[in-house]
Amino acid sequence: MRNLDENTITDAVLARLAQATDERLKEIVTSLVRHLHAFARETHLTEAEWEAGIRFLTEVGHITDEKRQEFILLSDTLGLSTLVTAMNHRKPAGCTEATVFGPFFVDNAPVYNNGDDVANGAQGEPCFVSGVVRGLEGEPVSGARIEVWQADEAGFYDVQYDNNDTHRARGVLHSLPDGRYHFRSIVGVPYPIPHDGPVGSMLDALGRHPWRPAHLHFMITAPGYERLVTHVFREDDRYLDSDAVFGVRSSLIAPWRQHASGTAPDGTHMTTPFATLEFDFVLNRAS
Amino acid sequence: MRNLDENTITDAVLARLAQATDERLKEIVTSLVRHLHAFARETHLTEAEWEAGIRFLTEVGHITDEKRQEFILLSDTLGLSTLVTAMNHRKPAGCTEATVFGPFFVDNAPVYNNGDDVANGAQGEPCFVSGVVRGLEGEPVSGARIEVWQADEAGFYDVQYDNNDTHRARGVLHSLPDGRYHFRSIVGVPYPIPHDGPVGSMLDALGRHPWRPAHLHFMITAPGYERLVTHVFREDDRYLDSDAVFGVRSSLIAPWRQHASGTAPDGTHMTTPFATLEFDFVLNRAS
Ligand SMILES: [Fe+2]
Ligand SMILES: [Fe+2]
Repeated sequence: MRNLDENTITDAVLARLAQATDERLKEIVTSLVRHLHAFARETHLTEAEWEAGIRFLTEVGHITDEKRQEFILLSDTLGLSTLVTAMNHRKPAGCTEATVFGPFFVDNAPVYNNGDDVANGAQGEPCFVSGVVRGLEGEPVSGARIEVWQADEAGFYDVQYDNNDTHRARGVLHSLPDGRYHFRSIVGVPYPIPHDGPVGSMLDALGRHPWRPAHLHFMITAPGYERLVTHVFREDDRYLDSDAVFGVRSSLIAPWRQHASGTAPDGTHMTTPFATLEFDFVLNRAS
Repeated sequence: MRNLDENTITDAVLARLAQATDERLKEIVTSLVRHLHAFARETHLTEAEWEAGIRFLTEVGHITDEKRQEFILLSDTLGLSTLVTAMNHRKPAGCTEATVFGPFFVDNAPVYNNGDDVANGAQGEPCFVSGVVRGLEGEPVSGARIEVWQADEAGFYDVQYDNNDTHRARGVLHSLPDGRYHFRSIVGVPYPIPHDGPVGSMLDALGRHPWRPAHLHFMITAPGYERLVTHVFREDDRYLDSDAVFGVRSSLIAPWRQHASGTAPDGTHMTTPFATLEFDFVLNRAS
């Protein structure tokens, strides 16, 4: 312990964990230290680069607040979120795939009835969304809690507006006895992840764009089923093959159908063009 | 890119670096992504653990400000700082070893003359520090810039006091034509690294204590020589074998000699007991 050098430091740090009583924490920190040190050795990290790393993490921390989570953005853009999501949701074939949670979920979104307009003032072309929530044997899931959130036509979530005072384009619905749900909202558009901070600078320095293909976020929970956090992506979006946060799955891509003014699926008479999206979800059993 | 899973995500992230023009950044991020993903796979990190990690880093970011650098503390306590320091300062035998920089350096410390009291009001038993700065062939280094900083008898650096208004127990001296330097300060004591934040909670959860053995920090620069950032540790300190930040090197341990009241090495008449420390530094050639 008094003669540490670049060859002995890793074992010295691991030896210091001998008194740890939380075995799982010890396992995680052991792996973290090994990989962190291996990274520094493999790159022969210079002191200036280490300092740049400290500065970068400090900036990520300082821009993070109640409305912006830059560490999640960092995890998303480095593919860690997708890896963790995939590892923890190995599902039987036929289940709807999970994807990244993203940084724009907020608690306490308003509860709506089926047929309501969850846009609640968010700007965008009207879109009527519907589908069925089922289990693996095809059984309809009644009363599933369906939380949806999305960006507006400018590519912003409600929480990204400085003067945001209400929940827009997000809400909670419950599936009907036959498993069906339906609501009105707006058409999703591609948007760049917030790129005016350190993660944006990182993407820029790496020659990467910050765009995500258009999508709706869904989180669906029902007793006896595994929680599903996923997106539905818009077919033909130009960013489907280069999502900045690696969230796309083929099985989650669906067509947004365009319609001229007229009668919407729920009977509403529309004087403007509108879109429809039909998407069914299949929940895994709770483990 | 549309069918990512836990097996394909790492290569997909690395493929996204194809447009990176900064080859060194690409190399670093490639290694980082590989090791970060390997860590998550090896531990089979759960979503709750990932969330805990995001929360932890957020807390580290939020407690970090101009006076407190919790990311450096994290790097120090995980041994990363020692690894980076050691890799970047492979020196010929005979040179004074480098050790961690630590989070308590501040710019613009006052310049003192040899013989001055750099304590500048910091509390502690008086200590007279002296020695010679030399090069590898034994040549005295004249005019070397010697920056020293240390904690007071309560274990705190000046910047850790809420009402801190001046530089205490830190300063800059220059070696004399024969390479000698000497100044008055106070005796260093063991101190815990700041442990009221997330890094302290981490150490606690791991069964680790936050203490560092008593030391003085030195940073020495001179034209034609490699910058030396190091500590001098106090012989017989109880924490020499368990420094919370892995900074101890045998060659950096020296005796602090105790003296009854009387004449100090620089001729000062002391009416109280005092200590002396003699330590020579050997600088490496600039590369
Ligand atoms: Fe999103
Ligand atoms: Fe220190």
